[in-house]
Amino acid sequence: TSRILRLSATKTRFGSTFSAATRPLDTYLRRHVGSESADVNKMLRALDYATAESAMDSFVSDVVPPNVLTKRPLAVKPTQGFSESELTSRLGEIASKNKVFKSYIGKGYVGTVVPPVIQRNVLENPLWYTSYTPYQPEISQGRLESLLNYQTVITELTGMAVANASLLDEGTAASEAVTMAFNAFKGKRGIFLVDKNVHPQTIAVVQSRSVALDVDVKVVDVSDLSNGKSESPIDQVCGVLVQYPTTDGSIVDYQKLSDTLKGEGNGSLLCVAADLLALTLLKPPSDFGADIVLGTSQRFGVPMGYGGPHAAYFAVADGQHRKMPGRLIGMSRDRLGGEAYRLALQTREQHIRREKATSNICTAQALLANMSAFYAIYHGPEGLRKIAERVNLLTSILATAVEAKGVKVENKHFFDTLTLQVQDANKVISAAEAKEINLYKLDDKTVSLTLDETVTHGDLVNLASVFGVSEADLESAADNVTSSIPSDMLRTDKYMQHDVFNKYHSETELLRYMKHLQSKDLSLADAMIPLGSCTMKLNATTQMAPITWPEFGQLHPFVPLNQAQGYKELLIELEDDLADITGFDRMSLQPNSGAQGEYTGLRVIRAYLESQGQGHRNICLIPVSAHGTNPASAVMSGMKVVAVKCKKDGELDLVDLAAKAEKHKDNLAAFMVTYPSTFGVFEPGVKEAIDIVHKNGGQVYMDGANMNAQIGLTSPGEMGADVCHLNLHKTFCIPHGGGGPGMGPIGVKSHLAPFLPAHPVVEMSEVTGLSTEKSIQPVSAAPFGSASILPISWAYIKLMGATGLLKATEIALLNANYMKKRLEPHYPILYTNNKDKCAHEFILDMRPFKASSGIEAIDIAKRLQDYSFHGPTMSWPVANTLMVEPTESESLAELDRFCDALISIRQEIKEIEDGKIPRENNVLKNSPHPQQDLLAETWDRPYTREQAAYPVASLREKKFWPSVARVDDTFGDLNLFCTCEPPALEE
Amino acid sequence: TSRILRLSATKTRFGSTFSAATRPLDTYLRRHVGSESADVNKMLRALDYATAESAMDSFVSDVVPPNVLTKRPLAVKPTQGFSESELTSRLGEIASKNKVFKSYIGKGYVGTVVPPVIQRNVLENPLWYTSYTPYQPEISQGRLESLLNYQTVITELTGMAVANASLLDEGTAASEAVTMAFNAFKGKRGIFLVDKNVHPQTIAVVQSRSVALDVDVKVVDVSDLSNGKSESPIDQVCGVLVQYPTTDGSIVDYQKLSDTLKGEGNGSLLCVAADLLALTLLKPPSDFGADIVLGTSQRFGVPMGYGGPHAAYFAVADGQHRKMPGRLIGMSRDRLGGEAYRLALQTREQHIRREKATSNICTAQALLANMSAFYAIYHGPEGLRKIAERVNLLTSILATAVEAKGVKVENKHFFDTLTLQVQDANKVISAAEAKEINLYKLDDKTVSLTLDETVTHGDLVNLASVFGVSEADLESAADNVTSSIPSDMLRTDKYMQHDVFNKYHSETELLRYMKHLQSKDLSLADAMIPLGSCTMKLNATTQMAPITWPEFGQLHPFVPLNQAQGYKELLIELEDDLADITGFDRMSLQPNSGAQGEYTGLRVIRAYLESQGQGHRNICLIPVSAHGTNPASAVMSGMKVVAVKCKKDGELDLVDLAAKAEKHKDNLAAFMVTYPSTFGVFEPGVKEAIDIVHKNGGQVYMDGANMNAQIGLTSPGEMGADVCHLNLHKTFCIPHGGGGPGMGPIGVKSHLAPFLPAHPVVEMSEVTGLSTEKSIQPVSAAPFGSASILPISWAYIKLMGATGLLKATEIALLNANYMKKRLEPHYPILYTNNKDKCAHEFILDMRPFKASSGIEAIDIAKRLQDYSFHGPTMSWPVANTLMVEPTESESLAELDRFCDALISIRQEIKEIEDGKIPRENNVLKNSPHPQQDLLAETWDRPYTREQAAYPVASLREKKFWPSVARVDDTFGDLNLFCTCEPPALEE
Repeated sequence: TSRILRLSATKTRFGSTFSAATRPLDTYLRRHVGSESADVNKMLRALDYATAESAMDSFVSDVVPPNVLTKRPLAVKPTQGFSESELTSRLGEIASKNKVFKSYIGKGYVGTVVPPVIQRNVLENPLWYTSYTPYQPEISQGRLESLLNYQTVITELTGMAVANASLLDEGTAASEAVTMAFNAFKGKRGIFLVDKNVHPQTIAVVQSRSVALDVDVKVVDVSDLSNGKSESPIDQVCGVLVQYPTTDGSIVDYQKLSDTLKGEGNGSLLCVAADLLALTLLKPPSDFGADIVLGTSQRFGVPMGYGGPHAAYFAVADGQHRKMPGRLIGMSRDRLGGEAYRLALQTREQHIRREKATSNICTAQALLANMSAFYAIYHGPEGLRKIAERVNLLTSILATAVEAKGVKVENKHFFDTLTLQVQDANKVISAAEAKEINLYKLDDKTVSLTLDETVTHGDLVNLASVFGVSEADLESAADNVTSSIPSDMLRTDKYMQHDVFNKYHSETELLRYMKHLQSKDLSLADAMIPLGSCTMKLNATTQMAPITWPEFGQLHPFVPLNQAQGYKELLIELEDDLADITGFDRMSLQPNSGAQGEYTGLRVIRAYLESQGQGHRNICLIPVSAHGTNPASAVMSGMKVVAVKCKKDGELDLVDLAAKAEKHKDNLAAFMVTYPSTFGVFEPGVKEAIDIVHKNGGQVYMDGANMNAQIGLTSPGEMGADVCHLNLHKTFCIPHGGGGPGMGPIGVKSHLAPFLPAHPVVEMSEVTGLSTEKSIQPVSAAPFGSASILPISWAYIKLMGATGLLKATEIALLNANYMKKRLEPHYPILYTNNKDKCAHEFILDMRPFKASSGIEAIDIAKRLQDYSFHGPTMSWPVANTLMVEPTESESLAELDRFCDALISIRQEIKEIEDGKIPRENNVLKNSPHPQQDLLAETWDRPYTREQAAYPVASLREKKFWPSVARVDDTFGDLNLFCTCEPPALEE
Repeated sequence: TSRILRLSATKTRFGSTFSAATRPLDTYLRRHVGSESADVNKMLRALDYATAESAMDSFVSDVVPPNVLTKRPLAVKPTQGFSESELTSRLGEIASKNKVFKSYIGKGYVGTVVPPVIQRNVLENPLWYTSYTPYQPEISQGRLESLLNYQTVITELTGMAVANASLLDEGTAASEAVTMAFNAFKGKRGIFLVDKNVHPQTIAVVQSRSVALDVDVKVVDVSDLSNGKSESPIDQVCGVLVQYPTTDGSIVDYQKLSDTLKGEGNGSLLCVAADLLALTLLKPPSDFGADIVLGTSQRFGVPMGYGGPHAAYFAVADGQHRKMPGRLIGMSRDRLGGEAYRLALQTREQHIRREKATSNICTAQALLANMSAFYAIYHGPEGLRKIAERVNLLTSILATAVEAKGVKVENKHFFDTLTLQVQDANKVISAAEAKEINLYKLDDKTVSLTLDETVTHGDLVNLASVFGVSEADLESAADNVTSSIPSDMLRTDKYMQHDVFNKYHSETELLRYMKHLQSKDLSLADAMIPLGSCTMKLNATTQMAPITWPEFGQLHPFVPLNQAQGYKELLIELEDDLADITGFDRMSLQPNSGAQGEYTGLRVIRAYLESQGQGHRNICLIPVSAHGTNPASAVMSGMKVVAVKCKKDGELDLVDLAAKAEKHKDNLAAFMVTYPSTFGVFEPGVKEAIDIVHKNGGQVYMDGANMNAQIGLTSPGEMGADVCHLNLHKTFCIPHGGGGPGMGPIGVKSHLAPFLPAHPVVEMSEVTGLSTEKSIQPVSAAPFGSASILPISWAYIKLMGATGLLKATEIALLNANYMKKRLEPHYPILYTNNKDKCAHEFILDMRPFKASSGIEAIDIAKRLQDYSFHGPTMSWPVANTLMVEPTESESLAELDRFCDALISIRQEIKEIEDGKIPRENNVLKNSPHPQQDLLAETWDRPYTREQAAYPVASLREKKFWPSVARVDDTFGDLNLFCTCEPPALEE
């Protein structure tokens, strides 16, 4: 029969007929790529590639210059990719090599009970995890509200005036505090003091990241400041960082320190890294005059995940918010005058200030911040306090019991952490490990332990037994326990009295609230999100599922490596595949965002140059078309930015590059380039540019934002670059999470490998096999960044295989060129190559409409919402344009639906151009149209309600509604309001 | 400090201070009950129970008659309930006792790959699993469309004209076919033949369920019919059931049988139990004249789940649909003339025909049918065919290879199942088990095995090795394999060419389609669903999560019991707890719906009576107020129904009962009673009624529909009932799944226990410890019904504990009485007790409005959709009324929101009564108002668009929109259309 014949034909390919017969059918590539082959051929034909066999190759060779196109096939194994079941089973094998011990290691990472209703309906819900950063507030009110809730939790618990919508981790948040303190004195105070009792990884990150600033970070005993023993003259100190409670568990009243810092108008900034759960019991840092309070919100319902991702928080005193890094959500109003949330003060965001930036922070940890916000909402103030009281009480009982056995507790006052003097720390640690317990070793005679809400009766008995304490001893201790918090440090004020924290305490109520919020947000579950430079592809459920497996989720980042052998295996495989894909020799998986990757790459370049006696080299050439984070990262890493011109056709101006490289040849450190260019074109001159830089002593940094156009066709390494970062959340399927998490590992050539970042607590060489002797200090708090989401990218690569990865790139290019072809009769297209081809994205020029109709790019982007689309990237890299990137995941039907929408909008513009419709009162200027707008009793617009709502017929069957009208940015910035509505006064 | 003082106070309760300190905080009761204590007190105060301490007790004693109120506390352990983490960890312990072997047992249960995107977004998505049966089509278009897709898959694959939206399992579907055949000849043909090659459990269920019909089910070799060897005169045969392929794996052409049955106008019905996957390759049963085709759709993406739930399908030839059991989805039009789906021909549904019924089928397996529909959509016709070809090919290779080793394959033609002659079946089975493989033993020299899509290369090598076949042997077999399907049995026609099966093949596209459908459906994630008699409480994520654990999901129902020890433990605990709760001695977990439970209970009563020489007793007394399924079940079990009157105040007429019991005392078999009554009142006379029945020789069956009002306060057993069923999907938190699954276990007094149903394949006594000597034959295909959802109810009970279960009942009563109190100034309330209290539900009388304003209950129910509510139960048990049941899960805020809506609607009615608004053109008659209706260009109604859309202010912030206008039932029934729109003709 036919299928047996077909089988014989495939025999050779699969080794044997039997192997051909048994090959699995649940393959991934066809599920990931949006179009089946008939539609692919349709698109190729539309682009005039007639012969089916070689059509794709011909197309690709018209897109990618011959000197760039690789001849090397990818080595990723399995070549054809695992099937989805095979992948899950392989990942299960890997997971089983991780051992889930009970970790009392602390240091900012503790166990937490993730409420199942939040896990299932937020973390495991594509409606939350596939949405984008809420730049289009009208279709993002759900997560904007949730992030505002998060900000409110932070301001309430810290007592500070304003909090942002999250940073990456506590370590980098602390280093942002250093920068703020440094800048507060306009760089004139060169000393920043870090208390020795700050978490070790935070100290290391702060030291590492201040290398490039003109600031001397000193680790001291801060009590010396008040004692007058300090060696640093206080008027040279821009700021001080303390931990609250301290890393060894003590509760210190920083009032005296604060008085010293503020005394006589001195004004050094008091920065406090505080534990959120402890703050439910302890007086807030605002009480003793903190200027900046920061920390992790991991223990609010986000698994440890072997280091991340979790949201770090950052809060400042009144009046400081314009200098604060990171995203800030604020309340504004919409065109109809109703309340509406939005990203506030965006011009304040550092990464778009290019070389004037003082931070390159761009992404946040939105998904995790939302989880923490819901955790706080579900428990409410009473619930949180009860959790804190229980943790504290169990710690007190344990302290009482071990002291009764002669183990000295070094910290008299504590919240959840005990520092214990023992005979032999190694022995204690080993004894604990035998009971599947991890403690933290401070020195040969000292261990510490930190309790958390997951500790059960049995856990505590087991833990106590490590110190020779029996259950009976614990019972007796419980009857004799005294308070471990000094009474003058107890919190007395009410917090979180807002409505939102006090009404969603049943599962039904919380579920409905989450559903209500998610229904306001457009995600990939609704429509294409064609954001240029953002690569909004759908990740498979198969990739996402494992991140909630306990073997990946419940590991502390500092566990002994023999407990993390599964992670080790996965990280090595991921590193190998990414190195193959990028053409590099080694990778670092530490940077936990794209901008972090840029920064790390440049730091590694600097370290390398220094090792070569070229430490003076500090010029970084950056094309004017670069992402704003490029110059920001360059500045952060201590370089001076020199801009390189682009030609009118968008290509890099090689003449200008050569001139500037030559001019700065003695100090040239690096050249940063994006490929394909940010204009969406594979530039033929890239290799020449790289040569120019190398000849002038510089290193080449390639921005990996557009990697989705490269894989399998070319690679940064083969083109000659020395470093590049990868946005795993773009090309490698980590979902955008509504504004984070991201991951930004870097690849390097071998000469740079020795300088890749290390970690103060974890000996990374045991995993990577790479000596850390010459390493730079860590750039992130955890050794492998946001480790628990790396299985997503690993799974994507292993599901696609070498074949699939190449295919995806081809389809991504094809989709973009097909759309360009359909749209070019209607809109001018900016920048294509000599074959009139774009890469994986293209730019629609909306500038002509300004004169012809008064319409600007923003009007078109907002009007697209009425067509149930997220607008493309707006006014970047060219003002008043829209940049469209479809990715390989979108089907031909969806591409056509989007093109049809834009073509229909073009007709709407034409009616204005023709004078049929007024320039200021039309479907574009009034867009988007939420339901309330269209249901108004009176209607006096020059178009009908139906024209506004249903401009194309398919919207009658399926329409995603914006929940507010166009949001007023100016009003929001002028009337900043960044927390939930305050509770009504009690009667 | 205060918390230490608080601790000491609680010491006694928890055994020790230490135990008090370590008690977990993630307790469930407060997450399940909608209102916190302040709101509970508010409600008590509103009902004039002033003193806080004993207020609840006083309230309860005003609701429940003293002679009914129990003094016995529940024995459920742990008394206070597990915390959510404790529960998950305990369930993990239980799960680990189930062994997940590779089962090739077949018999209608095989492995399947559940596409992760379907698992996560349907099975694990509360938007799908918490919605109700789609009786309100305007807010149910999503799952109606999906169920229509399911029906289309079935009609396409079977070739039949009409398919229903699923039945409970293949066994009961087969018994429905028997009933249809029997009724086709108006009961005049007394023989139904079942081929001996039908699955054993199907034969048993068919035999069991025909006991009460006047039909003789004979198991024969059906080929004898055509051979003229049949002992049954063909003109006495109403129908024949065959399996296709047969249970031993053969592919039989039933054309000759069909010709014989139809010959000379004889017309016996040919009923075919067919394998859906096989039908993608084999010619459809319609080709050889099948009248009814039925089977399971489990292998279309639904885990085996140790027996269920999965959807059974049922399809009939043209013109037979009015006689078909089960729900049928059809296309109709809405008030605006647009297409709209709905439940078609509802008056045809048997369970509402009471004693005229020929089936008591009521619930379906909607959630599982939807999963199967999406599975078929995701794979499309090509994908399904490939899966089938692979399964068949692997079976062929295995057959060739084992034959080469001298093992005889008995069935020459096969799809996926081989019957093998072996030396010693027991030895082979043991050898297989040692390799973690399950085969099926037919007799001492014969085993069978069935392959499925989950079989990997390694699996097949492992399986083959049981028969001494090596991988090399398989490779050689693969090169020599021949077709195992006779060429004249191969399918040649195209199927599933409809659009819906050919465009959602990428994960992105499928996800968007699922999201689009779910967005049209109101579920518990949106609002209260206050359906009287349906107990729409939210189940916790913690309860739902384990059903997708492989240890529960991937067990075949016929595995040796030593592989199912986890299930055994859970089933025993569940049985014990349910027995405690109901006051019974034993339970049977086999019935897989409420109506099945009724039927089983009555069958058990009959078996008992027979054992007492009282087999002639066949009169069943049923109050006129009973659920329609009660008389239907009575008829199905061979009883004659005699109605008992109710008094005007709704109470059972004890005088009438006594008279009828006396009149029929010689033949009285049973009395069926619902408690609290279907009118929502705890009747004081229930014990007297029970006594009357017992005194006249009858047994008392209590309907468990209203159990949510009883738990902890009273119980059927204590009241004196002999049997009762429980709707686990009402009271015990199994979610309604949008119309199934349900579960209907029964509890019995010890004298009935010996008669509880057994199973032909699984020796149930090994689990239950109860001899099956006197058991009735099975009522469902699997021994423990839909076993994989039993962990949900087990978890609910264990999380609540004795304390929580009682509390939930109290709050359910309180919520209902609070609402009644708020609504009674606005609407007449029907039926309350002598303290003016209702039980857990109450009836609003809408009859007066008919005269005053032309408004009927349906108008109010539809108008409630505009307020974002699902309407209450409509016109049952009293025409033109609404019955409201809030459950304990709803918060005071939600209760108030619902009351506010009804009060606002009352004002809308008043405007009509006052003549301000016309009787035929108003917000009620025109409701619900979908977006399209309100956005119409012209508007000439006597109310504004905003009055229609936003009658209360909160709807502007949160509104669930109906997606179509009121659906025209008559049009749909007159123009029946029950499959997807046919594909456009190819050009």
